[in-house]
Formats: sequence, structure tokens, C-alpha cells
Amino acid sequence: MSKSVFYHAGCPVCVSAEHDIVNLIGANNVEVVHIGENRSRIAEAEGKGVKSVPALVTPAGHVLHINFGASMADVKG
Amino acid sequence: MSKSVFYHAGCPVCVSAEHDIVNLIGANNVEVVHIGENRSRIAEAEGKGVKSVPALVTPAGHVLHINFGASMADVKG
Repeated sequence: MSKSVFYHAGCPVCVSAEHDIVNLIGANNVEVVHIGENRSRIAEAEGKGVKSVPALVTPAGHVLHINFGASMADVKG
Repeated sequence: MSKSVFYHAGCPVCVSAEHDIVNLIGANNVEVVHIGENRSRIAEAEGKGVKSVPALVTPAGHVLHINFGASMADVKG
């Protein structure tokens, strides 16, 4: 199975959701990307349809926005 | 591992998220509850902190609101 990608920006809501997602689907099945630090991947996330973080993009390309930490506009600053 | 519980109300956003969650964490690891049809469990969901559907409550009791289908007020009608 290809990996899901979990995009976050280090916010408390993001960190909590990251722990939950890693526990649920397994660390080997998800790539965790901090788009606050790795800003070159902001455009990649937006291109997949990520509107806010934290968000999980499934192997099928579906975007699951989980709770709400920050909008992409907030992340871009 | 105890099961997660996925609460939904049959809306298109809910059904799509349900498929994604079941694919990610496995049907054996999640109980799917349609609180539009099984209204006796609305109070249970609210008691766990569910504010909108679809939502996944983890075995640790954390609530992950996934995308947005309907508020609990909408579900209660």
C-alpha cells in the first residue's frame, strides 16, 4: 500500500492529531510533513487540495481535514 | 486494541470519509455508527465531544472531526 501523507504546521492541534493518526494507521504507513518548516512542500499540499492543517491525504488522493489548526493562508503568513 | 468509533449521519461527506477511514485503519478496528438512524446514540457521541459529523473517536477518547458534513444541531433537526 502506498503511504498517506500527513501535513501539519507544528500547532498543538496538529501534534495531537499526528499522534492519533500514527497510532491508528501505523508510522510505516504515513509520511509526516511539517509544512511550516518544509515550506517547499506547501504548494504540493495545496495542489492536493489541502485547505487547512492538520490534513491527511490518503493513498487514493482524498483529503481528510482533521479538526482545525491553521488555514493554509496562516501557514504561508 | 479497542475499537475506534466513526459517527456519521449518512451525508455524502460522511460516506466518503467512512470509506477512507475503513481503508486506512481496517474494518475490524472501527465501529461505524449512523446517528441519523440510530438516534439513541446521539447523546453518547455528544458526551465524547463530537461537535459535527463525520467524526472518529479514537480508543484513547480523542475526537477527530474529519472534514465537515453536518453539525450535531443539524443531525438533531
